[in-house]
Amino acid sequence: MEGEGVQSRKMLRALAGERVDPPPVWLMRQAGRYLPEYRALRERARNFLEFCYAPALAAEASLQPLRRFDLDAAILFSDILTVPDALGRRVWFADGEGPRLDPLIAEARWRFDEPVRAVQRLSPVHETVERVRSELAVDRTLIGFAGGPWTVATYMLQGEGGAKDRARRAVYERGDEVGELLAALTETTALHLAAQTKAGADCLQVFESWAEGLPQALFEPLVIAPTRRLVSRLRELGVQAPVIGFPRAATSEQIEAYARETGVDALSLDTAASASSLRARIGSTTPMQGNLDPQLLVVGGTPLEQGVRQVLRDFAGGPHIFNLGHGITPEAKPENVDTLLRLVRER
Amino acid sequence: MEGEGVQSRKMLRALAGERVDPPPVWLMRQAGRYLPEYRALRERARNFLEFCYAPALAAEASLQPLRRFDLDAAILFSDILTVPDALGRRVWFADGEGPRLDPLIAEARWRFDEPVRAVQRLSPVHETVERVRSELAVDRTLIGFAGGPWTVATYMLQGEGGAKDRARRAVYERGDEVGELLAALTETTALHLAAQTKAGADCLQVFESWAEGLPQALFEPLVIAPTRRLVSRLRELGVQAPVIGFPRAATSEQIEAYARETGVDALSLDTAASASSLRARIGSTTPMQGNLDPQLLVVGGTPLEQGVRQVLRDFAGGPHIFNLGHGITPEAKPENVDTLLRLVRER
Repeated sequence: MEGEGVQSRKMLRALAGERVDPPPVWLMRQAGRYLPEYRALRERARNFLEFCYAPALAAEASLQPLRRFDLDAAILFSDILTVPDALGRRVWFADGEGPRLDPLIAEARWRFDEPVRAVQRLSPVHETVERVRSELAVDRTLIGFAGGPWTVATYMLQGEGGAKDRARRAVYERGDEVGELLAALTETTALHLAAQTKAGADCLQVFESWAEGLPQALFEPLVIAPTRRLVSRLRELGVQAPVIGFPRAATSEQIEAYARETGVDALSLDTAASASSLRARIGSTTPMQGNLDPQLLVVGGTPLEQGVRQVLRDFAGGPHIFNLGHGITPEAKPENVDTLLRLVRER
Repeated sequence: MEGEGVQSRKMLRALAGERVDPPPVWLMRQAGRYLPEYRALRERARNFLEFCYAPALAAEASLQPLRRFDLDAAILFSDILTVPDALGRRVWFADGEGPRLDPLIAEARWRFDEPVRAVQRLSPVHETVERVRSELAVDRTLIGFAGGPWTVATYMLQGEGGAKDRARRAVYERGDEVGELLAALTETTALHLAAQTKAGADCLQVFESWAEGLPQALFEPLVIAPTRRLVSRLRELGVQAPVIGFPRAATSEQIEAYARETGVDALSLDTAASASSLRARIGSTTPMQGNLDPQLLVVGGTPLEQGVRQVLRDFAGGPHIFNLGHGITPEAKPENVDTLLRLVRER
C-alpha cells in the first residue's frame, strides 16, 4: 500500500481512533437494488451467486455507488452465503424471497468440505477485491467482509431466514456438532478474510446479523468465542487490517461484552442501539459506526435531516463512521443519499 | 373478590412485591397448539376470531392448561387483534400463516370506529373472563391482556407480521395520523382491559411484542408515552389490578426507561434479556417475569434443567414470576411442562 494514499483514507483514520470531522461515510448495502444501474447490471447474470462469482460484474457493482455518490468507502459486493456454498452446501436465491439452503438439521450426519479447499473456491471473490482496489481512488477505503460464524451457521442449520429458533434448538440438541460447524466456519472465514486483505481490502466487517434473540448463556459460546477466535486467527495469519464487528440486535450487555472480549477494533450499531449509552459503557476510544434508520432514505425531507443530526450528536463522544443501522432498502431514493452526504458534511 | 382466596393467589403476592419461594409459574401461550385437547377444541369453530369470540370455547381453552398442569395462573384465551377487529378493521388468520389485516398505509384516509362502541363488540371476550373466573380454583390468578398500542398499530398499519419497517416509515411520513391511531388504540385498550378486570381478571399483561428495532428517538413517542397514558387511564377508570408490561426485544436502555416511566407494576423479559443486569438497573422491588428459552420445552432433558436453574439464579434478586421469554411453540412437549414445574418447585 502506498503510504501517502493510505494516509488520506478517512475511514482508516477513524478506525485507527482519530475523531475525523466530518466523519467518513459509507452505507450498508450501498450497492443494491435501489440503484437503477445495479438492477441493469444484475440482469447480466442468471442467478445471484453467479453474479457474486463474476469478478467483472461484482467489481462494477461495488464501484457503482462511488461513481454516483461522494462516499468515503467502497465495500466488496458479495454475500455472506458464499462461505457455505464454498463448503459444499447447496445455496440458492429464489426471486423475491430470502436465501435458501439444504438445512443441516434435516441430516443425520453433517458433512462439509475442509476450509483450505473451500477458500480456493472463493478466489473469484478475491479477484473482485483486486479489481475494485485497482479502480478505486487512492483516498477511498475498501471494505472486505464476511458473515459471523454463528450467523452463517444459522442459515446452514435451518436452511432459511426468519427467526432462528430451530438453529437455536440444534445448539441444545446437537451441541458438539454445532461446535464443529462453528470451528469450520471460523477457520474458513478467517482464510477468506485474509485473502480479501491480501487482494487489497483495507479493513474488514464481520456481519453478525443473527446475534438477535440469544439467551445470555448462549451468547458467549455462539457469538463471542467464535468471533474472538476469528480475530486472533486473522492476526496469526498476519492480517493487520482493522476489524469492525456488527452484532446486530444483540442486547446492550451483549454488545458491551462483544466489544470488550472479541478483539474487534470497531463496533457497528444497529438502528435501535443507543450509541450514547454504549459509548459510555465502552469508553471513548473504540471507533463506532452507525446507526441512521434506513427508512429515512425512503422518507427524506425533515425526518431525514433530524435523523442525521441525531446520529451526529449520539456518536460525538468518540471516533465515528457515519452509516445506517441496517442495509439500504430497495425503496430508498438515491437523491436522499446525496442529501445525507450534504447534511453530514455541511456543519 | 373473596379476601382469603385472593390472599392465596401466589402470582398476585409476587406482583405486590413479595419474594414468593418457589416463584409462581405460568407460561406465555400456555393454552395453544402444543396441547392435543386444544387442537380438538379449535376445530369446533370455523375460524380463529370466531373461536376467540365464543365464550364457551375460549373459556375452555383458557382452562385446559390448568386441568393438565399445576400452574399458578390462567390467562384469558384471546388475541391482541380483537381490538382492531372491534375498531372495524378487517382481520383474518390464514391457515399456517400469521394474521392479516387490510393495511392502513394503503389508504388515503384512515377510518376506525370510536372506542366505546368498539369495546362493546368485545363483550364476548369479557364474558370469557367471567366464565374462566367462575371455574378457576380460588387460589389461582387470572390474567387479562391486550397488545400494546404501538404493537397493535404496526399490524393495522402494514397489515401483516414480519419486520415493521413500513409501519415505522408511516410514523415519519404520516406522524399526526399515527398519533391519532395510537390515541384511539390506547383508549380502546384501556376500556377493554378495565372490562376484563370488572369481569374477574386479577392482573393484566400488556404485550408490546413489536417494541423491537425502534430508534431511540421513536421509543418514547411510540411505546413509552402510549403505555403511560394506558396505565394512567386504567387508574382513572378505577382499575387497581397490577399491570405487567412486556416490551419484547427492546434494548436494555429502553426496557429500563419503560420500567421507570410508564407506571407498569411489573416487567416481563424476553429470552435474550439479561435479568440480572436489568435487576441491577431497575432495583430490587419491581416484580420481574421470565425468561426461559421456549425452545427448551421442545428439547427437554439436561438443557431444560440447566435453563430452569439459570433463570432461577438470574431472577433471584427480587420478586419473580417464572415464565418463558416468548410463547410456547407448537412443537413443545407437554411432559416438558411437567418437568419444568417440578424443577422450579423441587428446591
